Amino acid sequence: MQKNILFIMYDQLRFDYLSCAGHPHLKTPNMDRLAAKGVRFSRAYVQSPVCGSSRMSFYTGRYVHSHGATRNGVPLKVGEMTLGDHLRAVGMDAVLIGKTHMRVDADGMERLGLARDTIIGARVAECGFDVFTRDDGLWGRGPAGYYDDGPQPYNDYLKAKGYPGANPWHDFANAAVDDEGEMASGWFMENADKPANIAEEDSETPWLTREAEAFIAGDHARPWLCHLSYIKPHWPYIVPEPYHAMYGPEHVVPAVRAQSERQDPHPVYKAFMDGLVGRNFSRDDVREKVIPAYMGLIKQCDDQLGRLLDFLEREGRMADTMIVVTSDHGDYLGDHWMGEKDLFHEPSVKVPLIVYDPSPDADATRGTVCDALVESLDLAATFIDFTGGAIPAHIVEGRSLMPFLHGATPVDWRDFVVSEYDYSATPIATALGRKPREARLIMVADTRWKMMHAEGFRPMLFDMEADPQELRDLGDDPDYEAIVRMMYERLSRWARRMAQRTTRTDAQMEGGGGSGAKGILLGVFEPGEVPAEETAYYRGKPGRQD
Amino acid sequence: MQKNILFIMYDQLRFDYLSCAGHPHLKTPNMDRLAAKGVRFSRAYVQSPVCGSSRMSFYTGRYVHSHGATRNGVPLKVGEMTLGDHLRAVGMDAVLIGKTHMRVDADGMERLGLARDTIIGARVAECGFDVFTRDDGLWGRGPAGYYDDGPQPYNDYLKAKGYPGANPWHDFANAAVDDEGEMASGWFMENADKPANIAEEDSETPWLTREAEAFIAGDHARPWLCHLSYIKPHWPYIVPEPYHAMYGPEHVVPAVRAQSERQDPHPVYKAFMDGLVGRNFSRDDVREKVIPAYMGLIKQCDDQLGRLLDFLEREGRMADTMIVVTSDHGDYLGDHWMGEKDLFHEPSVKVPLIVYDPSPDADATRGTVCDALVESLDLAATFIDFTGGAIPAHIVEGRSLMPFLHGATPVDWRDFVVSEYDYSATPIATALGRKPREARLIMVADTRWKMMHAEGFRPMLFDMEADPQELRDLGDDPDYEAIVRMMYERLSRWARRMAQRTTRTDAQMEGGGGSGAKGILLGVFEPGEVPAEETAYYRGKPGRQD
Repeated sequence: MQKNILFIMYDQLRFDYLSCAGHPHLKTPNMDRLAAKGVRFSRAYVQSPVCGSSRMSFYTGRYVHSHGATRNGVPLKVGEMTLGDHLRAVGMDAVLIGKTHMRVDADGMERLGLARDTIIGARVAECGFDVFTRDDGLWGRGPAGYYDDGPQPYNDYLKAKGYPGANPWHDFANAAVDDEGEMASGWFMENADKPANIAEEDSETPWLTREAEAFIAGDHARPWLCHLSYIKPHWPYIVPEPYHAMYGPEHVVPAVRAQSERQDPHPVYKAFMDGLVGRNFSRDDVREKVIPAYMGLIKQCDDQLGRLLDFLEREGRMADTMIVVTSDHGDYLGDHWMGEKDLFHEPSVKVPLIVYDPSPDADATRGTVCDALVESLDLAATFIDFTGGAIPAHIVEGRSLMPFLHGATPVDWRDFVVSEYDYSATPIATALGRKPREARLIMVADTRWKMMHAEGFRPMLFDMEADPQELRDLGDDPDYEAIVRMMYERLSRWARRMAQRTTRTDAQMEGGGGSGAKGILLGVFEPGEVPAEETAYYRGKPGRQD
Repeated sequence: MQKNILFIMYDQLRFDYLSCAGHPHLKTPNMDRLAAKGVRFSRAYVQSPVCGSSRMSFYTGRYVHSHGATRNGVPLKVGEMTLGDHLRAVGMDAVLIGKTHMRVDADGMERLGLARDTIIGARVAECGFDVFTRDDGLWGRGPAGYYDDGPQPYNDYLKAKGYPGANPWHDFANAAVDDEGEMASGWFMENADKPANIAEEDSETPWLTREAEAFIAGDHARPWLCHLSYIKPHWPYIVPEPYHAMYGPEHVVPAVRAQSERQDPHPVYKAFMDGLVGRNFSRDDVREKVIPAYMGLIKQCDDQLGRLLDFLEREGRMADTMIVVTSDHGDYLGDHWMGEKDLFHEPSVKVPLIVYDPSPDADATRGTVCDALVESLDLAATFIDFTGGAIPAHIVEGRSLMPFLHGATPVDWRDFVVSEYDYSATPIATALGRKPREARLIMVADTRWKMMHAEGFRPMLFDMEADPQELRDLGDDPDYEAIVRMMYERLSRWARRMAQRTTRTDAQMEGGGGSGAKGILLGVFEPGEVPAEETAYYRGKPGRQD
């Protein structure tokens, strides 16, 4: 049977903003519906709490430390293999609909003579995907031009629908209109409670859902992975009606924060708290404007997921298609005096992850929750495993989740997860006197302890059992020296892992010795020390012809 | 003025088998002559004590942990940048004469559609060099075929000169003839005292010297780096007359070894000692056969260097050409009960390094010895610096040696060096129960302490001040726990370094923030919080045309 994969990613969706994950006010019946059919992973961590780097780890199955695209705007280097490479090798197409936040390694392509108008070049330029629709959904524009200078399919769609102007993405999908008929831009959070000035069906999430339906309904000679990569609920925080008015301040859960967090905080944490984002999200009035809009955006995502699941059922795809729902990172939303993502508290670094496997082998686990330590790079391994292909463990650093889906607990499962963050391109690096290659953070976490290593500073440390809200930083408490040392030992073990020997499989290495069979005789004093067949060509008269 | 680089590499040349480095019997007047004109580095370490991996670090300027070609036969992945890429970018050609031990990443080339018969593909297939002559000098042949299945230019040369047979490299250049007229193969060390059955001028070292002269004498539109990469004094240990008889057992320095090294040794060290290579090189009769031949091979190299220096003087190239002499690793020769290389005692991991800079700025340092901690990856940085180019420090991990050549001591010079070894493809990995990605060793050394980390085992540790011969392994001595901890802290710092963010320079990262200029407004509540020009496109009536 042809087995497909629908790999749905939302952007900036917190792990706990689903009703199946316990949100008290936000009901997400369609997320819950998928969770009831699959397994929900309650400890799923991303490899970096920032869009581009996180996604490059999803797509390569490798740590940021391995693939090197450490930050938005840092191109994924030519040569890094992706899901598309691995899946095509086992006969499956890999198709993109939506966002990747991938920046092309134009220098590398030029150096190797690769052109974007070739099949190979186009894939290299798009993280290994074949593009059905690529739209990163960030059509911001300022004095230095557009943030994204690529094609704008969503703007093209809006223009074709009659929305006027150069950038209807902003002017309609991401702005309201005020009483004077002027734009009330979604870039300003003060407008988050207003409805976006667009027909709901034309907003980004329904548009991408229809793109996915169009792809899935098409003719497919080969099984496919469809990466349906939504732009929402990522900012700008603004949503069309009726979603703009579904939630109000009464639905905003209290911020997880304590005054003690602001007393003698870690220098990097302090710098993030003290920035504009942190200051604004620390305001209750900001949270009460933004969070209802964020919830509305998620509600819209959930409704569209319901539509898509209905479509898949009608098309018969529920029987042959793995469905995954996840996100590239979370959103602080004022927790810990922070907004956005960037650091490693749970609201930022943990993501929703629901995996539905249509096969009968997965029947026993449907509707269950798995609390194993999972990393986003596991999905690449899972997808390859799902197709029946051999996981190239010399390249893909993740591990398959298939055993969990089939009710087994893998032996030797990892005992810690790692996430990374490169802040070299922020003013914080300069303010803290960090050079570009030192301005980095690495999280090491198990089910109890979470350490954040900051190059050049003391670590942060949380005891997630005693302090599940991560309010008490133990990083400079001498009582926890042994824990810190253990976490650093793990960090070291992880950092020195062999991640770049990607041109030879482990099996090839194991069978790679024995150069004697090719006549390389090492340290041999006299012929009898090695098998006679290895010396056959070295006997007889000089000048033998064979 | 056009500035060229002649980058001479010998293979398996010990650091202390030069008269300028103190060998009591082997006189190398031409190495000494170059040392008198340049700077000799007395603490130059290779990134891996094995041919291929070491060379890939010389050519990329990157650690093995970064480039991934961890062992002979592991291809250098497509996408890794090399000296050739960096030097061509500043207007210089990079040309190969001799050996690289590079294996092409054929899978990677196919994946990216690169063909070896294009300029780009040919360079990718040859570590970034343009090939004048490529010959790895290992034409071994066994039941599984030739060790190297590439073209055999040296065999072609011998055949054209009338040497008969399929493999005159072996039958004449690397074999003697016994009393019955049968081959006495150089693969068997018992024959090391016999003369190779070849005219001296046709043996490998003079042949490659003439190739270099032919290249240098040619017309050059651009400055060049010529990588003259000799095959010798690497085994087979056999040399034509008169070199075969220049040295005898009386010139063999005593082995550096102690019985105590065999008592409760580190398991990995023990496995190497116990192998055939270790056992044979522990025999005095083997050393007395092999070392005189090894010395003869070096003497021939030295004579050919003299010839080449004379040629360069006649051609006027001493005035405009940097000359470097080094090796890819050393040779135990029975020291520490070991043969070959592989581990990290000084005879294996330390190499000769002499750098001659023709510029007047280097006059003050001519004939001096520099004892700074130098790594082989520094040469790539040095070459780029010599041309006047900016060192791409986001790619090249080495540092320029030019300050040392000009009498300055760089600030912040490194305080430790690192070398690596992957033994996954050896029977030792199986015997020790190590999986392919765990069968690795990492040396961390400063001017006093040298630690060898072995994944899965205790470390080895030497105090090179108290025990300069490295006879006393302190790795399990509780008195040295603090030193071991310090060395592991360094190992961790090194292992977590940012080595893969190669698609953006440090300067680009520093200037990489400020997405506000492109209209991405993060965490902004109201317009006044950011400069007005950043919000210009977000004001006015919806549907603006500009």
